[in-house]
Amino acid sequence: MGSFNIHPDFQNEFSYATSPLDPEEFRRQGHMVIDYLADYYQNIEKYPVRSQVEPNHLKSHLPDSAPYNPEPIENILRDLQKHIIPGLTHWQSPSHFALFPCATSTAGFLGEVLSTGFNVVGFNWISSPAATELENIVMDWFGKLLKLPGSFLFSGGGGGVLQGTTCEAMLSTLAAARDQMLRKIGRNNIGKLVVYLSDQAHFSFQKAAQIAGINPSNFRVISTTKDDEFSLCPNSVRSAIIADVEGGLVPLYLCATVGTTLSTAVDPLGPICNIAEEYDMWVHVDAAYAGSACICPEFRHFLDGVEGANSFSLNAHKWFFSSLDCCCLWVKDPSALIKALSTKPEILRNQATDSKQVVDYKDWQISLSRRFRALKLWLVLRSYGVVNLQKFIRGHVNMAEHFEQLVAMNKRFEIVVPRKFSLVCFRISPSAMNQNCKILSTEEDVNLINQKLVESLNASGHVYMTHGVIGGIYFIRFAIGGPLTDYRHVDMAWTLIKDHADALLKAF
Amino acid sequence: MGSFNIHPDFQNEFSYATSPLDPEEFRRQGHMVIDYLADYYQNIEKYPVRSQVEPNHLKSHLPDSAPYNPEPIENILRDLQKHIIPGLTHWQSPSHFALFPCATSTAGFLGEVLSTGFNVVGFNWISSPAATELENIVMDWFGKLLKLPGSFLFSGGGGGVLQGTTCEAMLSTLAAARDQMLRKIGRNNIGKLVVYLSDQAHFSFQKAAQIAGINPSNFRVISTTKDDEFSLCPNSVRSAIIADVEGGLVPLYLCATVGTTLSTAVDPLGPICNIAEEYDMWVHVDAAYAGSACICPEFRHFLDGVEGANSFSLNAHKWFFSSLDCCCLWVKDPSALIKALSTKPEILRNQATDSKQVVDYKDWQISLSRRFRALKLWLVLRSYGVVNLQKFIRGHVNMAEHFEQLVAMNKRFEIVVPRKFSLVCFRISPSAMNQNCKILSTEEDVNLINQKLVESLNASGHVYMTHGVIGGIYFIRFAIGGPLTDYRHVDMAWTLIKDHADALLKAF
Repeated sequence: MGSFNIHPDFQNEFSYATSPLDPEEFRRQGHMVIDYLADYYQNIEKYPVRSQVEPNHLKSHLPDSAPYNPEPIENILRDLQKHIIPGLTHWQSPSHFALFPCATSTAGFLGEVLSTGFNVVGFNWISSPAATELENIVMDWFGKLLKLPGSFLFSGGGGGVLQGTTCEAMLSTLAAARDQMLRKIGRNNIGKLVVYLSDQAHFSFQKAAQIAGINPSNFRVISTTKDDEFSLCPNSVRSAIIADVEGGLVPLYLCATVGTTLSTAVDPLGPICNIAEEYDMWVHVDAAYAGSACICPEFRHFLDGVEGANSFSLNAHKWFFSSLDCCCLWVKDPSALIKALSTKPEILRNQATDSKQVVDYKDWQISLSRRFRALKLWLVLRSYGVVNLQKFIRGHVNMAEHFEQLVAMNKRFEIVVPRKFSLVCFRISPSAMNQNCKILSTEEDVNLINQKLVESLNASGHVYMTHGVIGGIYFIRFAIGGPLTDYRHVDMAWTLIKDHADALLKAF
Repeated sequence: MGSFNIHPDFQNEFSYATSPLDPEEFRRQGHMVIDYLADYYQNIEKYPVRSQVEPNHLKSHLPDSAPYNPEPIENILRDLQKHIIPGLTHWQSPSHFALFPCATSTAGFLGEVLSTGFNVVGFNWISSPAATELENIVMDWFGKLLKLPGSFLFSGGGGGVLQGTTCEAMLSTLAAARDQMLRKIGRNNIGKLVVYLSDQAHFSFQKAAQIAGINPSNFRVISTTKDDEFSLCPNSVRSAIIADVEGGLVPLYLCATVGTTLSTAVDPLGPICNIAEEYDMWVHVDAAYAGSACICPEFRHFLDGVEGANSFSLNAHKWFFSSLDCCCLWVKDPSALIKALSTKPEILRNQATDSKQVVDYKDWQISLSRRFRALKLWLVLRSYGVVNLQKFIRGHVNMAEHFEQLVAMNKRFEIVVPRKFSLVCFRISPSAMNQNCKILSTEEDVNLINQKLVESLNASGHVYMTHGVIGGIYFIRFAIGGPLTDYRHVDMAWTLIKDHADALLKAF
């Protein structure tokens, strides 16, 4: 491969004879990569937001086996720029409005960098006491910011843990709930356990339940309606539970959502938790995206009722500037988690654990090994302070409100679901279609033109958005939350949307 | 708190009004943190290897809520140095000989830094095509280096995936095996499924099986013996399986190990896989630590028989310089994984997925979101080349051999289990005890003095080792694999061990 010529300095295979972590070489290459990334952010608007490559793009550019001889970092960065960058969808681009944000920040980035540099494995307290204790501390800090009830904090007998993703948080708490119930009703009754979720809950929950060995025929997916703004109806929950109990099954776990993926619907936590309590069920609140907004007093009411839940999670890597991955999970009863997930091998035995004075986080999660993720949250909270974190979030919400107004004022478009946070759900309206067509257009026609619109926008490379289908309506999701996004990007996107819609309406 | 004075530049709460990812501020702070870490490596020998703090060390130094106003990076780094560093157990210290290595390297670190900088979420191909394709490519590169059979590679119909930890790899493959079996025998028979492991298998496997809903009374822990060097005996495996089949149970999954945690025992893969095949069972090979050594031809024979297994994993973050976390999992039949772990929500629907030309890694793992871990392996393989990676591993093995010789030549000590890789298992010998005592010492006395030895060494701060108990014998594990470890650290550790043992023997 022409691009893999060996740099003259690297002809000698003994270049790295001493150490793969020579501090001076680390320093030299580290500075180089920091500059590379700073330049990347500076130039990020020049790249197509959604990668425009075809499948098997890389295969044609990279060799089919690992090099025998070492290669200099300069060559690797050159190949990165030439071959990898075109294959990236740029999640930090200010014009990335797809799915939900996955925001990094200088502080979140540096927290991860320090964690990777120390590279400690914080599975138990002794393996790095500060990793565990900083996590205890920042999880209480964050819980207080969210005004979680004291029972979710270490200071109140509960506690928080940093996991990778919401999927892990769901699976861990589900295993805790399941084993707690099976201790009561007997292991052999695993087939009777039932889990409940709305048809708007994140699809990862069904996957978690499947991994946990819950019979898929016992997944109760409860329908939501437009009238309820796609939130769970407590009466429907109760009916489903009663039917199962009457059928000899055992209600186990309900997954409620604050800010659903499709349309940021919010389930009514209070009424749902009350019902669950009657049936001795575990309630988990998934606030993966919207939870972060609840550090602002004006959004906190969306968490009302969380005091009745057993566990609560949000992804700090989504909208809390903490870079992937960083899921914050709080539980009221850590002992339920620990009973399901603890291991006590002799090789990890140590005095601190025996003293029961410390937290061993390996017993709060699926995996044994764990990174020092608390550094990220610590840096984010300290570098920006509560004041700026609220400001960043309000900035995104204000931009979404601005975008929503632009859409609402334009008769060719309509808002599909009322906006709550920084996601706007919109589409080309049926009336715009009818104005343009001689015959009345069908709902399929409307869906089709909106599908064409999102495809044409994404193919332009100037923006990236994703779609959703709710109540049979195909719509476009415009999610704001990138660390570099400003009003001008929102306005540019809006201009582009109008232009592409015009062209499509004319051609229809 | 005195240490939390606000830097004058930060009195203005609007400092970050524009963006949490301003490229020039990113550059300035990024360089600062690179220098901080380079200095950390330069000074790492000055710190106690195992943290010497008491429980609740940090609580007394940090405030109990998050700061309202932002704080400058200089203050945060100062607190890091003052409060966090003393609470770290320094896994990259050249005198960290505990557990197994968790080695980073300049290349592994930079791969993670780039991944965090791009912060793409590679759950499916379109979300960042290069993240998926580079993973496909490097997993085939690595598989070829290990001389895995073609059936484990993408080029041969199988394929590799980067997960966080071995626990995840075990749980993912177990869910695949379980669902495959339940499709045959019916969902209601989950209580009949049996899993098999040796008493030396990693304790995480039982946890994974518990999470997957396998009844703990169906975990068959097969005893190993000193005569077999603590490897699984095929006859014992067969007997256990036959007993279960006769009892109406269904053998499902066997976890074999290449390089057990306690003593690096290697299970005989060929005979075990042959038995498992007769009973239509899934065999997973866990080579978390020792797998990396198999890129050297002289160690490859330990993988003989892997061609009969269904899946194989190793942790590149242990002994392949890839920084936490990076577990490499190869499977022969990706469709089994996909059937158990796939989700097809409308919101992720895209043309590339519909075309079936691409890999969507979300269907190969527990979580949806995933980091761009392939960059780490790509940088490690290219920066060092196969030649240096083999040299690093051989260097560690040679140092372990050197240490083993020092132990073997000293009559006060003995080797407990023959060394295979870079772990030496040793103890103060019973004969040394008897020379020092007037009455013949018991096995408990010998265990006790060795326990005191490891505690006294670790309390010195100069080294960190962990212990194990095998066949009733308490011994010390001396694991080499740190990126900064050299002969002089091994020799210093040996001098320290002799001195502490002398003092203990005299006092006994």
